[in-house]
Amino acid sequence: MSEKQKKPQKLKARLPRGFVDRDAADIRAVNEMTAKIREVYEHYGFDPVETPLFEYTDALGKFLPDADRPNEGVFSLQDDDEQWMSLRYDLTAPLARHVAENFNEIQLPYRTYRAGYVFRNEKPGPGRFRQFMQFDADTVGAAGVQADAEMCMMMADTMEALGIARGDYVIRVNNRKVLDGVLEAIGLGGEDKAGARLNVLRAIDKFDKFGTEGVTSLLGAGRKDESGDFTKGAGLSAEQIERVLLLFAISGAGNDAANALSVGALRLQKLEEAFVDSEIVQAGVQELKQIRSLCRSGGYDDSQILIDTSVVRGLEYYTGPVFEAELQFAVTNEKGEKVVFGSVGGGGRYDGLVSRFMGQPVPATGFSIGVSRLMTALKNLGKLGQNEVVAPVLVTVMDGDIESMGRYQRFTQELRKAGIRAEMYQGNWKKFGNQLKYADRRGAPVAIIQGGDERAEGLVQIKDLIEGKRLSGEIEDNTSWREARVAQVSVPEAELVAKVREILEAQAEDRARAG
Amino acid sequence: MSEKQKKPQKLKARLPRGFVDRDAADIRAVNEMTAKIREVYEHYGFDPVETPLFEYTDALGKFLPDADRPNEGVFSLQDDDEQWMSLRYDLTAPLARHVAENFNEIQLPYRTYRAGYVFRNEKPGPGRFRQFMQFDADTVGAAGVQADAEMCMMMADTMEALGIARGDYVIRVNNRKVLDGVLEAIGLGGEDKAGARLNVLRAIDKFDKFGTEGVTSLLGAGRKDESGDFTKGAGLSAEQIERVLLLFAISGAGNDAANALSVGALRLQKLEEAFVDSEIVQAGVQELKQIRSLCRSGGYDDSQILIDTSVVRGLEYYTGPVFEAELQFAVTNEKGEKVVFGSVGGGGRYDGLVSRFMGQPVPATGFSIGVSRLMTALKNLGKLGQNEVVAPVLVTVMDGDIESMGRYQRFTQELRKAGIRAEMYQGNWKKFGNQLKYADRRGAPVAIIQGGDERAEGLVQIKDLIEGKRLSGEIEDNTSWREARVAQVSVPEAELVAKVREILEAQAEDRARAG
Repeated sequence: MSEKQKKPQKLKARLPRGFVDRDAADIRAVNEMTAKIREVYEHYGFDPVETPLFEYTDALGKFLPDADRPNEGVFSLQDDDEQWMSLRYDLTAPLARHVAENFNEIQLPYRTYRAGYVFRNEKPGPGRFRQFMQFDADTVGAAGVQADAEMCMMMADTMEALGIARGDYVIRVNNRKVLDGVLEAIGLGGEDKAGARLNVLRAIDKFDKFGTEGVTSLLGAGRKDESGDFTKGAGLSAEQIERVLLLFAISGAGNDAANALSVGALRLQKLEEAFVDSEIVQAGVQELKQIRSLCRSGGYDDSQILIDTSVVRGLEYYTGPVFEAELQFAVTNEKGEKVVFGSVGGGGRYDGLVSRFMGQPVPATGFSIGVSRLMTALKNLGKLGQNEVVAPVLVTVMDGDIESMGRYQRFTQELRKAGIRAEMYQGNWKKFGNQLKYADRRGAPVAIIQGGDERAEGLVQIKDLIEGKRLSGEIEDNTSWREARVAQVSVPEAELVAKVREILEAQAEDRARAG
Repeated sequence: MSEKQKKPQKLKARLPRGFVDRDAADIRAVNEMTAKIREVYEHYGFDPVETPLFEYTDALGKFLPDADRPNEGVFSLQDDDEQWMSLRYDLTAPLARHVAENFNEIQLPYRTYRAGYVFRNEKPGPGRFRQFMQFDADTVGAAGVQADAEMCMMMADTMEALGIARGDYVIRVNNRKVLDGVLEAIGLGGEDKAGARLNVLRAIDKFDKFGTEGVTSLLGAGRKDESGDFTKGAGLSAEQIERVLLLFAISGAGNDAANALSVGALRLQKLEEAFVDSEIVQAGVQELKQIRSLCRSGGYDDSQILIDTSVVRGLEYYTGPVFEAELQFAVTNEKGEKVVFGSVGGGGRYDGLVSRFMGQPVPATGFSIGVSRLMTALKNLGKLGQNEVVAPVLVTVMDGDIESMGRYQRFTQELRKAGIRAEMYQGNWKKFGNQLKYADRRGAPVAIIQGGDERAEGLVQIKDLIEGKRLSGEIEDNTSWREARVAQVSVPEAELVAKVREILEAQAEDRARAG
């Protein structure tokens, strides 16, 4: 048969590339996690607000994550009045539109949070999806760095509320003013040097990956990787490179809390001295010192919130402090290598984003968490899914006549009314084996059975499926700490609920003891 | 100036038509509501599963809500490989795709629920949005009507879990087989009569609006409304019309529970007699009787779950029982008229939807709740927003130097660490009046103030803003049940948290007493 002839007739069930279905464990884990994040944000005095998934394309602007492709990377379509609409690619641009649109009704400073899906029209890859969830908090109408400091503290509290130990996370803080000032001081200021600046920022951003040597090459002539591929450099002179390296040259001292403290302070001092003529560097350094001082007053040390002038955040719209939440414990990547888990969120000050719509400046700062990525991290740490959901009790169906069916339905409703998760078997009841197989696959804790004989005597059989498994040796023997339960009992119909509850409680006790 | 010259220079902040932002009250109300719905579904043994917002357009099929425009009404765009993708317009078609795609891993019957946004590319109108939330539950792989009966019971339980009193809601149940059988019996069977059938179903669907007389006109030559506009009828003969009217002729007996019981039974009996030769009507009636019997066994009466053969659900894909959850209390509409609130959700059996992808039949049934609409209803009933969120305590800023700011920050963190919702003022601190205005607009319960004098003595001022309002006469005087609190106190810094907590507790007590 030719390829053409083999073409299937029926509709193919498949998802567009880069999109995924989410299963129960995943959904429950995200719900558990977002509830904890929400609690922290509420605690800080933030309130929820939500925007729809569509915005007019012009309202999103050209602030796309990948600056190589302005206005690409989003899903766009034309409305019936010919206007272009796009699915939001983050939650910040829509918030800016929301504030501008409702400026007269909004009380500033406006402190809000939101969780929702965002979309990137990009080539999907492993762990790289075209729809994913972000969880953001923003303060609009607050010009002072105290608002930025608060964001950092809130992120630290969020990490700890999620059970991430001190030392396993750090909030790194930098300031665009420092970066911009350094670039200006080495002669890369002005509109016409925007491209050159971008190349330098990209090189700096590679420090974690390539180290000082690699970055030096990327800032200069270029870098050849192991495969021989050459990446063109930013073309800076040796003197320019030396000054840029001041931003992060001591960063290698790394994650050691005692060390980090001195590193952060030392670096600020070096930058202050080296760029004594740059007003913008000086202003940036002062702001970072203030943030550090405020965080100290709030009770946070450098192991939690660290000034780190090597941090570059990709988005073009940042105008002041930028932050990055990093998880520092090691995980094994797809290649089997041990790597630091890395960033799970970030943000910064974006004073220009709301004012695009307005005749006046509207300062703003915010933070965004990558929900899926953080969830992966928490799963790695065993911090999610502690409250396992117990599968429902299965009421099996032995006879399909309307009267028998009514009885099984009644048992099910009685269990539910007593607060017990329960279901009647809804498949083809004629194959009883399928029902037990279903109970097993579903992880049902208990099965209820009533055949004709039991019915005649007004009895029901109750099978303890967990104990049954244990007795048949699939679960490790635990007789040292308790006697085996009876895996199957017959009780009068009137005692059904009480007996099921008793078994479920015994199972819960077993689980608690086991771990 | 000409219109052209007046064209604004700056970007306009506006949302595409038919999309809305959601405020804190709305978001909290939906969260409260969906949590309750979720609890019921979990209790019935359903587990969450979620699909992304995009599907390939062909996977959605032509089962659009408005059958006049197959494959219109959705938002679609072409992927970079030229394939058409669409935003889902409901949660059922994506579930069908999900089941078919993962058929080998899924244990049937597959019992799942999901909440999420769906999109309709339609002309927006008042209360008619292009993005809205649905909350669905479905059982896939269950052919028997016991699965449909369970859906009805679960919906009744959901209404009651949301605080809707018995008698204020009803789940109406019909069967497509009855409708199809009646149409076939009057000569409208077969593929070529699909259009005629649709016209008849549309006429039946207008019963609530136009009554027997109006429907009779619409089934016959047509109907002229008050404005003189003429709607062409389905063109049935008097004899055909008489037979169709059997479906709902006695429906006028209405919402009275005692009456409804006999009406439902009577109608089924009449249909059984009138269509004794139609196998399909007979099968449909039998299924409805079984559903009623199962619901009775489960403890539900006709005031909760009512067989009503006048129910037509718009979607073409239903193949068996269909259900509609209706709220029966009166509300005042935009025109000031008292009307029954009406449908908040519905569903039915869709045995063909999964099998489109498969070589085998896969029966399924499900139910969908319109979240926004149900929330509006619950707000009308005063059943939402009971757990009002208390606004944060405001720590005001009197001095902006780094040391003072650090102190305010410390107060704020201390309050938060003690579990108290708190924020430091983040706006321009220099205008103190603005801070108090902010506290007022925000509804802050307490303000913390420390100027130079207090600072020198190690004191903080604590203002009870609620009591302050009450004393200034804005709140009704309640001295009959308690003495006025002091609206402002100075305490040593070390007592800040304890004193704030004391005031918040007193305020909470006041609220509890007030209602």
